[in-house]
Amino acid sequence: MTRPIIPDIVVSRLPLYLRAISRMEEEGLEYVSSHELGARLGISAAQIRKDLSQFGEFGKQGTGYHIPFLKKQLIRILKVDRVWDVAVIGAGDVGSALARYQGFQEHGFRVAMLFDSDPAKIGKVINGIEVRDVADMERLIAEGSIQVAMLAVPAEVAQETADKLIAVGVRAILNYAPVNLAVREGIRVEHIDPVIHLQHMTYYLAPR
Amino acid sequence: MTRPIIPDIVVSRLPLYLRAISRMEEEGLEYVSSHELGARLGISAAQIRKDLSQFGEFGKQGTGYHIPFLKKQLIRILKVDRVWDVAVIGAGDVGSALARYQGFQEHGFRVAMLFDSDPAKIGKVINGIEVRDVADMERLIAEGSIQVAMLAVPAEVAQETADKLIAVGVRAILNYAPVNLAVREGIRVEHIDPVIHLQHMTYYLAPR
Repeated sequence: MTRPIIPDIVVSRLPLYLRAISRMEEEGLEYVSSHELGARLGISAAQIRKDLSQFGEFGKQGTGYHIPFLKKQLIRILKVDRVWDVAVIGAGDVGSALARYQGFQEHGFRVAMLFDSDPAKIGKVINGIEVRDVADMERLIAEGSIQVAMLAVPAEVAQETADKLIAVGVRAILNYAPVNLAVREGIRVEHIDPVIHLQHMTYYLAPR
Repeated sequence: MTRPIIPDIVVSRLPLYLRAISRMEEEGLEYVSSHELGARLGISAAQIRKDLSQFGEFGKQGTGYHIPFLKKQLIRILKVDRVWDVAVIGAGDVGSALARYQGFQEHGFRVAMLFDSDPAKIGKVINGIEVRDVADMERLIAEGSIQVAMLAVPAEVAQETADKLIAVGVRAILNYAPVNLAVREGIRVEHIDPVIHLQHMTYYLAPR
């Protein structure tokens, strides 16, 4: 029996489902219908049922989804039932904010290493994490078997830094540099660039 | 003659096209083919031609797109041929990094106001922008006719803060709080949450 390939657009919605039902659990809810979940997320109930049904039978007609069970299943599916060590490259404003961010640990991630090329930053400790020399990045990441990196370096060096990370085993890069990265098949890249999101929205605005 | 409605997924790609051709212009290129542009972005040449053709005749058979011309058109279409004043709510790590970010101005945005509720932060100046009391947020945003906001507040107060912003005229919110926002039709919201992107990628990884 071969497992069908799930479309990436479906996978991309799973973390949103997980975030929403985790919040509902904090609010003390025990069951949620696809309609209630859809209303929170601006996604249709039918879409949610269709997405989740690709992974198994998680809901019951009438009672909806049992929140603790669905949460556990989503955590397993997204492989965050463990903690992934993450390297942050660049200890500027963005990299430092990522190193200090309290929201990673409970969602499956730990900033394990932080790198910069600036001698003034190397050796500093941010949220208990020492800033290491980026010249040692490849060796330390290979030693740590780190597969996930967040890239917060200037656009000019983003591609070469990504290439180095991939060469030593990084398989997933969250890229904060405002430039597209070219990577080979099998490497996952996601981009975070506020300008891209802002420009997407201004398309719809009427200037005053 | 009525203008056809462009699918949002097409609109969402325009800022990526603009960013890529701006970079090509910096590199000294004058013309680009849909194939070259597609290779940079990991998008098919056919998709790029189809997307851009919805807005006009920007390319020529054989020579491709004239970069300065296409850039100008994209800037006009995305309405960033002006500078939008943006309010940042929350002057913690993320809000401070946004206030200091140098990449907004040249892409159509200016952080005009910065708010926080913490008396220890109010009055501080970050990158020339004074942190104002969030209690004055609604009045100041209404006075400034600000339509775009970046929300960098704790999850617990994100929805109520968004409601207040919308009540005084904000039409587009870039939300950094790790929670979905419910807004009425006509209000644009985009979300930035590193956890969501990381979990999307770990789905594809094999733990070591």
